[in-house]
Amino acid sequence: MPPANEFDRLRVVLVAARNPLNIGAAARAMSNFGFRHLRVVNPYEAAFREARSAVGASALLARAEEYKTVAEAVADCTLVVGTTAVRHRELQHPLRRLENGVRLIRKQLGSSRVALLFGSEKFGLSNAALSHCHWLMRIPTCEENISMNLGQAVAVCLYELVRDAKAVRQTDKVKLASSAQVERMTLKLLEAMRASGYLDRRRIADVEERIRRLVRRLNLRADDSTAWLGILRQMVWKLSGGRKP
Amino acid sequence: MPPANEFDRLRVVLVAARNPLNIGAAARAMSNFGFRHLRVVNPYEAAFREARSAVGASALLARAEEYKTVAEAVADCTLVVGTTAVRHRELQHPLRRLENGVRLIRKQLGSSRVALLFGSEKFGLSNAALSHCHWLMRIPTCEENISMNLGQAVAVCLYELVRDAKAVRQTDKVKLASSAQVERMTLKLLEAMRASGYLDRRRIADVEERIRRLVRRLNLRADDSTAWLGILRQMVWKLSGGRKP
Repeated sequence: MPPANEFDRLRVVLVAARNPLNIGAAARAMSNFGFRHLRVVNPYEAAFREARSAVGASALLARAEEYKTVAEAVADCTLVVGTTAVRHRELQHPLRRLENGVRLIRKQLGSSRVALLFGSEKFGLSNAALSHCHWLMRIPTCEENISMNLGQAVAVCLYELVRDAKAVRQTDKVKLASSAQVERMTLKLLEAMRASGYLDRRRIADVEERIRRLVRRLNLRADDSTAWLGILRQMVWKLSGGRKP
Repeated sequence: MPPANEFDRLRVVLVAARNPLNIGAAARAMSNFGFRHLRVVNPYEAAFREARSAVGASALLARAEEYKTVAEAVADCTLVVGTTAVRHRELQHPLRRLENGVRLIRKQLGSSRVALLFGSEKFGLSNAALSHCHWLMRIPTCEENISMNLGQAVAVCLYELVRDAKAVRQTDKVKLASSAQVERMTLKLLEAMRASGYLDRRRIADVEERIRRLVRRLNLRADDSTAWLGILRQMVWKLSGGRKP
C-alpha cells in the first residue's frame, strides 16, 4: 500500500446516486481499503447519511461532503477520472482499463488530489459530468453483463488502488517440517505398517523408498508432522498388543 | 482473461448467507466477471432465488445449486479455498493474501474444479466449514475495518481472478496528432495572436519557439487538433475584419 497520506488525497465522488444503500456500501468499501474522503453530488435521497449499509463507516459517511455540481466537487483536484461500463460510447475521452488507469492515479496521488467519479445506478455519468473528466476508466467486465452494482464497482476500483503487486509472490509463513521430522514420521509409519501386517500381505520391492517418497509428497507442516507422529505411535502401541510401557 | 472453460471450473460457494440481497449481489458480480456456477449451502432465507439484486444474473441465480452440507458442495472440487477477514485466528490453515492466492487458484483451474467459499455476513465461515478448506485467503483490508460486505467481497475476489497483469501497460488507442497537424495549429495560433495584437503589446523574444513548445505540451489528439484549427481559423477571420471570403 502507498503511504496513508497518498490515499488521503483521493476523493471518491458519487454523482446523482439513487439508492442510499449504495452510498453506504461505497462508504464501507472506502473504510475497508483505507480511503476517507467521500463526496456526494445531488443524491436522489437527501437522507443518505443514515444508510445502514455503511457498516464500520458511519463516521466516514457522516463526514461526506455534499455538492450541487460536479465542477464544485472536483475543483481542488488536479486529475478527474470518470468510471464507465460503456465501451463504445463515442469516445470523446481516452478509456483505460482499471489495471492501467489506477497506475496513473497512484502516480498523481503522490503529489496532488485526484477525484474518482461514479455515476448513477441507472444511467452512469451524464455527458455533462463526463466533460469534467480528464479520462475514463472501465472495470474489465464481460460483454454479457457489463454493468456493475455501484457499491461493488467502488469496492473493485479501490481494491485495485491498494493492491500490492509484490504480494503476488508473497510466501506463506507456515513452518514446514524439517527432514528429521519427516523421517521420524516415515519410520513410525513403516513400523505401523509392519505391525499391521500390511507389508507381509503385499510384497512390494523397495518398500521403504516408496513410503519415504509418499510421505515427502505430503509437504507436511512442522506441527502436523508432530501430530502424525503421535497418531502413529498410538497405533503402533495398540498393534503391538497395547501393553502399558 | 483465462479461456472461458477455465472460469467454468470455478464454484462460488456461499455458506449460510443470511441476506438474499447479498446472494443476488454475488450472482451479479459472477455474471459481470464471467463465472457461472453458484452453490448455496443452507441459506437463511429459502426464497433467495428471487433476489432483485441479481441484475443481469437472474438466470445464473435460478440455476444455483443448493446443498445441505459443505462436504457435498465441494465434493467434486480438487481445491477448496476459504475466504476470511480474520488475521489472527489460531492459524490451522495457511493464510494467503488475495493477490497471491488467486495465482494458485488460476493454476488449479487449468485442470480441475476449485471451490471458493464465503461465509455468513455475521460470522464468516465456521470452524466446521473451514476444516474442508485446503487454505484460506484474505482481501487486504485495513485493520480499522477488516470486514467487507459479502457481495463486495465476492466482486473483489472475482475481479482479481479476471485481472490481466498485462493490461497494466496497455496503451490507449487514442490517435495523437501528427507533427504536421500540430504545426498547422501552431501557425494558425500565431496568426491569431498577431491579428489580436497580443504580440505587439508584449515583445517576447523567441516567441515562435515558445509558442511551438506550448502547443506541443498539450499532447493533442488528432481530432482535437482539427477542432482547434477550426476555432483559430474563425478567430483569425473575425480578427481580420470578418470579410466573407
